[in-house]
Amino acid sequence: MKVGFIGLGNIGLPMATSILRSGAEVVAFDLDPARVAKAVEAGARGAIGPTEAIAAVDAVVTMVPAGEHSRRVYLDDGVIASAPAGSILIDCSTVDIATERALKAAAAAAGHDMVDAPVSGGPLRAAEGKLTITVGGTERAFERAAPVLAMMASSVHHMGAGGAGLAAKICNNLVLGIELAGLSEAFALGGKLGLDPEKLFRSMSSSSGDSWALRELCPVPGPVPTSPANNGYRARGAAHLLLKDLGIAQAAAQLTGVPLPMGAAALSLYTQMKNAGLGDLDVCGVIKMYEETTDRASHA
Amino acid sequence: MKVGFIGLGNIGLPMATSILRSGAEVVAFDLDPARVAKAVEAGARGAIGPTEAIAAVDAVVTMVPAGEHSRRVYLDDGVIASAPAGSILIDCSTVDIATERALKAAAAAAGHDMVDAPVSGGPLRAAEGKLTITVGGTERAFERAAPVLAMMASSVHHMGAGGAGLAAKICNNLVLGIELAGLSEAFALGGKLGLDPEKLFRSMSSSSGDSWALRELCPVPGPVPTSPANNGYRARGAAHLLLKDLGIAQAAAQLTGVPLPMGAAALSLYTQMKNAGLGDLDVCGVIKMYEETTDRASHA
Amino acid sequence: MKVGFIGLGNIGLPMATSILRSGAEVVAFDLDPARVAKAVEAGARGAIGPTEAIAAVDAVVTMVPAGEHSRRVYLDDGVIASAPAGSILIDCSTVDIATERALKAAAAAAGHDMVDAPVSGGPLRAAEGKLTITVGGTERAFERAAPVLAMMASSVHHMGAGGAGLAAKICNNLVLGIELAGLSEAFALGGKLGLDPEKLFRSMSSSSGDSWALRELCPVPGPVPTSPANNGYRARGAAHLLLKDLGIAQAAAQLTGVPLPMGAAALSLYTQMKNAGLGDLDVCGVIKMYEETTDRASHA
Amino acid sequence: MKVGFIGLGNIGLPMATSILRSGAEVVAFDLDPARVAKAVEAGARGAIGPTEAIAAVDAVVTMVPAGEHSRRVYLDDGVIASAPAGSILIDCSTVDIATERALKAAAAAAGHDMVDAPVSGGPLRAAEGKLTITVGGTERAFERAAPVLAMMASSVHHMGAGGAGLAAKICNNLVLGIELAGLSEAFALGGKLGLDPEKLFRSMSSSSGDSWALRELCPVPGPVPTSPANNGYRARGAAHLLLKDLGIAQAAAQLTGVPLPMGAAALSLYTQMKNAGLGDLDVCGVIKMYEETTDRASHA
Repeated sequence: MKVGFIGLGNIGLPMATSILRSGAEVVAFDLDPARVAKAVEAGARGAIGPTEAIAAVDAVVTMVPAGEHSRRVYLDDGVIASAPAGSILIDCSTVDIATERALKAAAAAAGHDMVDAPVSGGPLRAAEGKLTITVGGTERAFERAAPVLAMMASSVHHMGAGGAGLAAKICNNLVLGIELAGLSEAFALGGKLGLDPEKLFRSMSSSSGDSWALRELCPVPGPVPTSPANNGYRARGAAHLLLKDLGIAQAAAQLTGVPLPMGAAALSLYTQMKNAGLGDLDVCGVIKMYEETTDRASHA
Repeated sequence: MKVGFIGLGNIGLPMATSILRSGAEVVAFDLDPARVAKAVEAGARGAIGPTEAIAAVDAVVTMVPAGEHSRRVYLDDGVIASAPAGSILIDCSTVDIATERALKAAAAAAGHDMVDAPVSGGPLRAAEGKLTITVGGTERAFERAAPVLAMMASSVHHMGAGGAGLAAKICNNLVLGIELAGLSEAFALGGKLGLDPEKLFRSMSSSSGDSWALRELCPVPGPVPTSPANNGYRARGAAHLLLKDLGIAQAAAQLTGVPLPMGAAALSLYTQMKNAGLGDLDVCGVIKMYEETTDRASHA
Repeated sequence: MKVGFIGLGNIGLPMATSILRSGAEVVAFDLDPARVAKAVEAGARGAIGPTEAIAAVDAVVTMVPAGEHSRRVYLDDGVIASAPAGSILIDCSTVDIATERALKAAAAAAGHDMVDAPVSGGPLRAAEGKLTITVGGTERAFERAAPVLAMMASSVHHMGAGGAGLAAKICNNLVLGIELAGLSEAFALGGKLGLDPEKLFRSMSSSSGDSWALRELCPVPGPVPTSPANNGYRARGAAHLLLKDLGIAQAAAQLTGVPLPMGAAALSLYTQMKNAGLGDLDVCGVIKMYEETTDRASHA
Repeated sequence: MKVGFIGLGNIGLPMATSILRSGAEVVAFDLDPARVAKAVEAGARGAIGPTEAIAAVDAVVTMVPAGEHSRRVYLDDGVIASAPAGSILIDCSTVDIATERALKAAAAAAGHDMVDAPVSGGPLRAAEGKLTITVGGTERAFERAAPVLAMMASSVHHMGAGGAGLAAKICNNLVLGIELAGLSEAFALGGKLGLDPEKLFRSMSSSSGDSWALRELCPVPGPVPTSPANNGYRARGAAHLLLKDLGIAQAAAQLTGVPLPMGAAALSLYTQMKNAGLGDLDVCGVIKMYEETTDRASHA
């Protein structure tokens, strides 16, 4: 099997490497030639442009930062137009819903099968080939994409028709962002009320406040040794990426007429966090938005 | 052992009954004589006032709706003043932090031991003697209260000094309220994006969006058969009670200077829910605040 | 002078009529032939498509509902591509910032002058030729657009380079939406505290709470006789239009990394208002989101 | 006329001085003897305790920081109990609604007339005797208080029964806080979109976004020369005082069951502002919560 792979960033490159490790061939492209060189080192064939990357391949995988890049690759750069009729196109990027819909429509008009297949798990899981992927598309498109996705993921979920994979990721991360901000304000409040964070953690994790976020990403140092809170909030998942997903959720909510007060409050907190220069910290570092500081007093 | 018990509401009465079942004597009082009569039926001795209820008892338990009632019982009605020096006072009510602090100070000045010991679990768990109780107070006060609490609870946590029991409950329920509102907006958004709720549930519960609230109180009908969502949102825990706790959290945040944007957004949603006449529904019924309706159009 | 006019809705049609009344010729197009017929009745020449509407005209004016329509007209339908080089294009639509930027770039590449020129004032002011228009574009583009704008408006402000006209309208309406929601909660709270709305109005309007919104659109019946609150909230400016602008503000905030907690809370309220079937009411009808109702109780 | 005056802070002292200047006698008390000494310098007679300050006076005025202090003076220190029956008590403090209600009830039970009479205008207006005062109480209480209030204020409004004066101030400042945060996000967004703040100000102030807050406290330097924004945000009205009022509004909303999403979002912003060490800046300095900073990056 030969896979055309476009987008060799922090997660894209290890994804392409996972495909190579599974025994498939990869033709790789990125706007940055240095990234292409790294893929070539790993065994891929380098391409000098998107359309070269997809010529004569069995499947196309894209992994770009945002909707605008996905539009550029598929529409402006001509991937949809130049792919042989009946191609299987796999967009692993996390894009906005409007972009997803526009791409699916264009792909369908050109006679291709296409799935939205956004990934979760970060660079480490990508390197291990153990990402989690939620997939949206027809049964046929999913069946065609599944063998390629299996090379990169330990967990692949077909969530429904086109867009459902993206929707599932966005809804999950909307909840995650809200929970982390909620946990942050509970631990900030508890601390001010004199509660020992260890005891608050034990009580909450055995009660109705329990969650994956609490057990894995407890936002205060102490209770969960593996939480980034014990490591200077060094990112397991970077805040600026969650901020991006909260923004996609907000745009999707406007598109569909759903009020989003909780998600919007979380979005504002993560925006403030990024503006404070903390966007590269872990998602649980949002607790810093609840802390007292006198840093800015001198600016007055 | 003889226990003076004040406050025989939906949860207080079964708590008093649990104490009786454990073999202790109970002297019971409530402002409503009909509630006292029920306690007498269950084996308690009825009292005609708060001070009679606490005369010659080994421990005092109170279970009243809110801070103002707790102040009335302990301060205005003279429970603290008239209790024999060195009494153990157990306030199982969920009150505001300012009230808790005022009562502890008054009790200490009068030479009593006092614990804040708010309960979780609702009427059913109260009837089974299987409540969860978080306790705040000195070691000595906790040790004196523990045998009484054990008659009513399957799980008793000493959270720290005075106020810590209350703080733990409030922080937990702050998180719960935020999560339920967050889950509601994720399922509302997912639904509008065409996601099958069953699939969204399965994906989220096996991912970073997992939580106790999702698994027990999934806000849409279907995925979790035991969720109130499958039963017309008939309350396992009533929304108006969570609203009360969110209000206490907000007041505590103001007292201690913690910003609370997430908790405040949840508080507004539960307030709207109560104002829409839905306060007696289950906490997960907050999803109704995200739904489209044309009910009010005719008012225009 | 001959003007090509595309988009003959509730505001577009009276705008085109104002141009005719000023003595200019109009070639008019709308997707709905009935609207074209109305323009023809008013003296315009009807066109059978966007490109016909702009052939051999001195200026092009567009007035469509949202960004997607503006993209369709200018890009997909070929207005930018088919207009003679050096045309002056005037988009009076209120579109999202990303669309505005895409259209300006395309127009510049094709050698046209283009301005964003969103209008305020509603159908009545449009019919009188007394709209307020904020304009963004180069000095040259503004000077070319100004004579056409003067036919439709009593007040035309050149706000700066491309995008500035749109930005000014969005920032203004962001403030308006926030103020109306804020006034609504103040009057709702005041009412519950027993304040006479007349007295609250007099006190606030002579103090630091004064605003145009208070004096013109006071959200409770009584204090301001001309407020829609005294007329069943019949729209002077419809809530669903303000909702649209709050959405554009939110999208612009995400694009530029500005936190928007106030605007987001207002956006949620107006979304709830529309979902309650009240989107056609006046903007000040948002106070209904603060009212008690038992309408939905029976749904439980 | 002889006035007992309790509470000689930044505003209380110039208020007492205004009364002296009007020709009345003042018996003054404050917990801080240095403040009493200043009042004595200004011509008052000093008292060594609250009850001495109110012995044999024609009216009692109190001006303390918050509800807890007002409760202490009137209830714990015995001002209500020890005042001669039928006294007129004037609380100029801005207290929470629950405190106001408790004090009115106690005063009525003791046979006194009492008004809530919170002041606006700050230390400068206090020194000039030109405060604005909103008053709540019976007609009789108002008539008795009016001559004393006239010595301190240029504008006195009788807003209704007991509590109405306080409610009016709180509702006004709720709106003010919401508007300032709203203006801040509009100017922050406008700036990022490339809008000249001068032009945004001119456009907004001649349109539906106009308000007292915009014209007096425009949050960016430039457009309004007298705005604190041009003076390093040196306080005309300090942010921590508005924060206090937003907290009272929030508590009042909970007491009365009004959702307060806008006020809550503003409360969170001002809390963050205070926690950043900026609580002494002007209320319009809340725009700093919208700014980018890399101050905290090094903490990561």
